[in-house]
Amino acid sequence: MSNERIDVTKNIYDENDRIAAETRQVFDQKSVFAVNVMGAPGAGKTSSIIQLINNLPQIRSYVLEGDIESDIDTVKMKSLGIETRQINTYGACHLDAPTVLKAATDLSLAEPGLLFIENIGNLVCPAEFMIGEHIKLLICSVAEGSDKPYKYPLAFEKAQMILLTKIDLKSYVDFDDAFFGKGVQALNKTAAVFEVNARTGDGFAAAARHIEELARRARS
Amino acid sequence: MSNERIDVTKNIYDENDRIAAETRQVFDQKSVFAVNVMGAPGAGKTSSIIQLINNLPQIRSYVLEGDIESDIDTVKMKSLGIETRQINTYGACHLDAPTVLKAATDLSLAEPGLLFIENIGNLVCPAEFMIGEHIKLLICSVAEGSDKPYKYPLAFEKAQMILLTKIDLKSYVDFDDAFFGKGVQALNKTAAVFEVNARTGDGFAAAARHIEELARRARS
Repeated sequence: MSNERIDVTKNIYDENDRIAAETRQVFDQKSVFAVNVMGAPGAGKTSSIIQLINNLPQIRSYVLEGDIESDIDTVKMKSLGIETRQINTYGACHLDAPTVLKAATDLSLAEPGLLFIENIGNLVCPAEFMIGEHIKLLICSVAEGSDKPYKYPLAFEKAQMILLTKIDLKSYVDFDDAFFGKGVQALNKTAAVFEVNARTGDGFAAAARHIEELARRARS
Repeated sequence: MSNERIDVTKNIYDENDRIAAETRQVFDQKSVFAVNVMGAPGAGKTSSIIQLINNLPQIRSYVLEGDIESDIDTVKMKSLGIETRQINTYGACHLDAPTVLKAATDLSLAEPGLLFIENIGNLVCPAEFMIGEHIKLLICSVAEGSDKPYKYPLAFEKAQMILLTKIDLKSYVDFDDAFFGKGVQALNKTAAVFEVNARTGDGFAAAARHIEELARRARS
């Protein structure tokens, strides 16, 4: 890699981190706990956010939907009465802090609560960019296979919380619990892992309580 | 985006394309038909490559395995007697032409045949970089959902061939065939789509014949 490229890349990360800190301040001032929802395409990010919101009826929730193109998920969120704004990156493979800050100012954030920021479906690049979040929530489906921590370590390393989704498919896809668990443990000793099924809602009550607890700790 | 960043990005693409053309020449000289295998994490890229190779016993096959970390898939390929080299990118979210050219020189390419280059599991970035391939083969699992063409259009647009994998899970995940098909058609009128199941091998005989036909056309 050329020195020129290294310099430009470093500048991009530094500038992003500066604006991420600024964005986080905006959320703190509004008492909004921001969750950066990361995961591969089709991991179940949108369905999981809906389940978490349904399990926290006492808390006001907001959503930013990141997608390269389309507003399919925003339409779904709005149909459920959730205040949501779409971010389309038109090619970019992750959300960055300037984009999130701009979109967040378009949300009311009228009451304290939770903001779910659904990142671009990508198990690689989003983990490299802070976007003003309080925690990173990694969504990983059993259909992706149990070797994902070994192949995509950064996302697993940086997550404060992990949802293992589509557990109803476990027996059909030969998912190896022990191998997956060992891979996660090697990278991350503190993230809580919840097994969930967004079709039935199984597991989301406990996951929702954990987010509420993490938000409480962040305020105190 | 700053002008400095645009210039550097343009230089990266231009330099990549130049080396991709050089890499393609190496493959052509060896009469090796190169397949850039793209897809999200856990889409079934490795299993599909193995099935395709098994269905083409009369053709010599080579594999380059792209992963951020780990050599899990290379170990699997080698255990099946397939000449394979591992590429680890240690962070980079896609393969690029210089990396592939370097790794390819480490393969014997002793006989004419097929080279499967398994890209990093990522439905976004790999589609932007040519790596000397003759065709791009997109692998997409029904577990990812039927909205993928709408959300990740570039990969679907650029593919010469698409495998829809894990079709045994179709009834469990409410996969909408018509919606998926409409999305693919809007982006790509020429790519052949094959429904496959890597657990049973269903569908791979036809897919393998199609690759053989594409390779024959490339030589003539």
